[in-house]
Amino acid sequence: MDNKVTMEIQKTALRLKRNYDNQRLFDIALGDLVPKKDMIVSIINDLRILTFPGFFGSENMAYVSKENFAGYTLSIMAEKLLKQVELALAYDHVIDDALMLEQEAKRVVIEFTEQIADIQAMIMKDVEAEFDGDPAAKNMEDIIFSYPGIYAIFVYRYAHALYRLNVPYIPRIMTEYAHSETGIDINPGAEIGEYFCIDHGTGIVIGETTVIGKHVKIYQGVTLGALSTRAGQELSGVKRHPTIEDNVVIYANTTILGGETVVGENAVVAGNTFVTKSIPANSKVASTMPELEIRTK
Amino acid sequence: MDNKVTMEIQKTALRLKRNYDNQRLFDIALGDLVPKKDMIVSIINDLRILTFPGFFGSENMAYVSKENFAGYTLSIMAEKLLKQVELALAYDHVIDDALMLEQEAKRVVIEFTEQIADIQAMIMKDVEAEFDGDPAAKNMEDIIFSYPGIYAIFVYRYAHALYRLNVPYIPRIMTEYAHSETGIDINPGAEIGEYFCIDHGTGIVIGETTVIGKHVKIYQGVTLGALSTRAGQELSGVKRHPTIEDNVVIYANTTILGGETVVGENAVVAGNTFVTKSIPANSKVASTMPELEIRTK
Amino acid sequence: MDNKVTMEIQKTALRLKRNYDNQRLFDIALGDLVPKKDMIVSIINDLRILTFPGFFGSENMAYVSKENFAGYTLSIMAEKLLKQVELALAYDHVIDDALMLEQEAKRVVIEFTEQIADIQAMIMKDVEAEFDGDPAAKNMEDIIFSYPGIYAIFVYRYAHALYRLNVPYIPRIMTEYAHSETGIDINPGAEIGEYFCIDHGTGIVIGETTVIGKHVKIYQGVTLGALSTRAGQELSGVKRHPTIEDNVVIYANTTILGGETVVGENAVVAGNTFVTKSIPANSKVASTMPELEIRTK
Repeated sequence: MDNKVTMEIQKTALRLKRNYDNQRLFDIALGDLVPKKDMIVSIINDLRILTFPGFFGSENMAYVSKENFAGYTLSIMAEKLLKQVELALAYDHVIDDALMLEQEAKRVVIEFTEQIADIQAMIMKDVEAEFDGDPAAKNMEDIIFSYPGIYAIFVYRYAHALYRLNVPYIPRIMTEYAHSETGIDINPGAEIGEYFCIDHGTGIVIGETTVIGKHVKIYQGVTLGALSTRAGQELSGVKRHPTIEDNVVIYANTTILGGETVVGENAVVAGNTFVTKSIPANSKVASTMPELEIRTK
Repeated sequence: MDNKVTMEIQKTALRLKRNYDNQRLFDIALGDLVPKKDMIVSIINDLRILTFPGFFGSENMAYVSKENFAGYTLSIMAEKLLKQVELALAYDHVIDDALMLEQEAKRVVIEFTEQIADIQAMIMKDVEAEFDGDPAAKNMEDIIFSYPGIYAIFVYRYAHALYRLNVPYIPRIMTEYAHSETGIDINPGAEIGEYFCIDHGTGIVIGETTVIGKHVKIYQGVTLGALSTRAGQELSGVKRHPTIEDNVVIYANTTILGGETVVGENAVVAGNTFVTKSIPANSKVASTMPELEIRTK
Repeated sequence: MDNKVTMEIQKTALRLKRNYDNQRLFDIALGDLVPKKDMIVSIINDLRILTFPGFFGSENMAYVSKENFAGYTLSIMAEKLLKQVELALAYDHVIDDALMLEQEAKRVVIEFTEQIADIQAMIMKDVEAEFDGDPAAKNMEDIIFSYPGIYAIFVYRYAHALYRLNVPYIPRIMTEYAHSETGIDINPGAEIGEYFCIDHGTGIVIGETTVIGKHVKIYQGVTLGALSTRAGQELSGVKRHPTIEDNVVIYANTTILGGETVVGENAVVAGNTFVTKSIPANSKVASTMPELEIRTK
């Protein structure tokens, strides 16, 4: 390479070194010691194969029993997860003793594995809800093959299990990966009941302390958010996001804000509505729509 | 791996096997027998090379004639498509006879190939529309290289051709792939005329029974949707989404709903507008904007 | 392959050749002569490793000094960038002399490299702003690992530097790649001050001539756009997008339009607000929210 380019690179390398020193966060040896997004995506892919066997990535399985298939795929997934959980726990410095760290990572993997069959069954209920709710769905397979809503819910349900097991970093990396794939942003801390249905989905935001009941359906662009986050880190841990009870439908681009806001069961919230107060059960809610002004050009 | 982890894996494998048995959908041998998303993405890439030759993926072509380039790329694409269409038709069980299945897959590939040159020319008109409509576009190449709107329209136009040839699964897998890449959700069933222009695009939803004329331009966050889908699968096949006539412009974040809603030709619909009734031709439509309350802090 | 399929391919190849001839844009030998998206994504990955060392892709670095790490990664990045800038400049035909082209590409790479250390420091301030502003952020690492807002800002800051060095195609390919990954659409021409914070982010659009001050925070679905782009290419170069002064907060799904619209410092703009006129400094702005109609079903 050209001399002048090389010289500029040398100067910049020195300046970057000084940046890294001041910023402290950056020990370049970290590379070996932080959770790896690639591996976490690979764990998501294994979980997808386990959840929808035959649909993704499992070829030439004609002579394998379902049980062996599940055991084999679980083993591969668990091995990767064990390593990533150990890295995440070690980097987080909550546990410093190496033996305790290993024990804790094992405990997490065991308790997570224990929940997989139930989560798988729960996701199949979400597929049913999606099929029942969408006239454009030709069949269940269409949903499994291509619906972003099911992908986001599938990733969320496993990430939420890890979140509840107090694993740092990994749950959020998982749901943000799904966010990037689907435009649907579900915080792994949210609690979401069974038969959850997302239609289209782009732009949906479901905040960390949201609670959602059973048989709820939401459309694209819906925000379940906080009223104000100006207090920033002081609000960490406080319930800032709404509660949505059973059988609620929320149409497209509606915003519902606030930790004390409850949308009561069976309520239907129209599209483009802005809600900051509780909504009674069994009601229909809409904004008075602004008049349309129609002028001839 | 640790004993306790192995034991938990065994237990979970058994429980998953029971889930799969009950859920029926899951024959693990399916892996060989369902359409493969990877291959469908690869077909999209071949179609992109054919549509924009020289721009994507075709290096060292200096000594190849345009005709040989097209013939070669078409052959590769057709081979992959034949296989995927056969899988999709077989899995769908509409045709069970193996010979008829092969014949039907061939018919689809031939009729699809026949349309490619026209679709390619149509997409170039979309590129023109995009260039004419966007002051931030420096040139046509900028659009081909990087505009998400053109990517979504390109994928939609080919997926729509397969949808009209009654291919199951594959058209939706194609448009949902584009949705994931761009945030633009166009159902392959929608009918969209030439010179279609999408600006920015994130959050756009165009439903299955939407009809759009020529020279239409829409912005980010626009929904062309159904009034209510509470009836779910009962609505399958019914026209549920609006009709947008020629030369209409729809600005950002506007929602237009209902199968009987017609936006007449040359109409301009302002941003953030909520429309559930027909709009006459040659009109400008806007919501009376709510007053802004400005308070000194 | 079947005879009929082969015949259809031949016919279509001929028709495509004729399309390419008429469309002129398509010299298939171009493949060697246009910027390559893959390489530009690879440059983004190198810049990410340089910006957040240890967090992405740099394993087995335990024995390498920070300075050597930076110099090595910069060299790899610069080599790729030199090639892509040369391709972009050559394709753009602004410079036709081969020697001048090479000189100009070197000048760009040198001036870009010179800015990297400052840009890296600036991005770390954005990470700080993100942490301070979001109660759901557990720590700085969470943000670096998984926040889409930080990813979009990181790509924008480097793309903007190339934009200001008058590099064609590449800046927009970079920001549209980030758009595809995050749903956040920042034009590389926008000017954005330090400590910029994006929360959630899906659906954000920041137009080419937007100017944003320091310590600004914006939420998902915010559009900073043009009032009308009906004039299309005639508006190229004109300031069409708003100015946002220091310390402004703009909540979710708000739209601010127009090149003469200024949001004064310290202003807070509520969610779902539509702004087309300037907002005074130190004010709180909201739309009078439409009444909610609540009916018992």
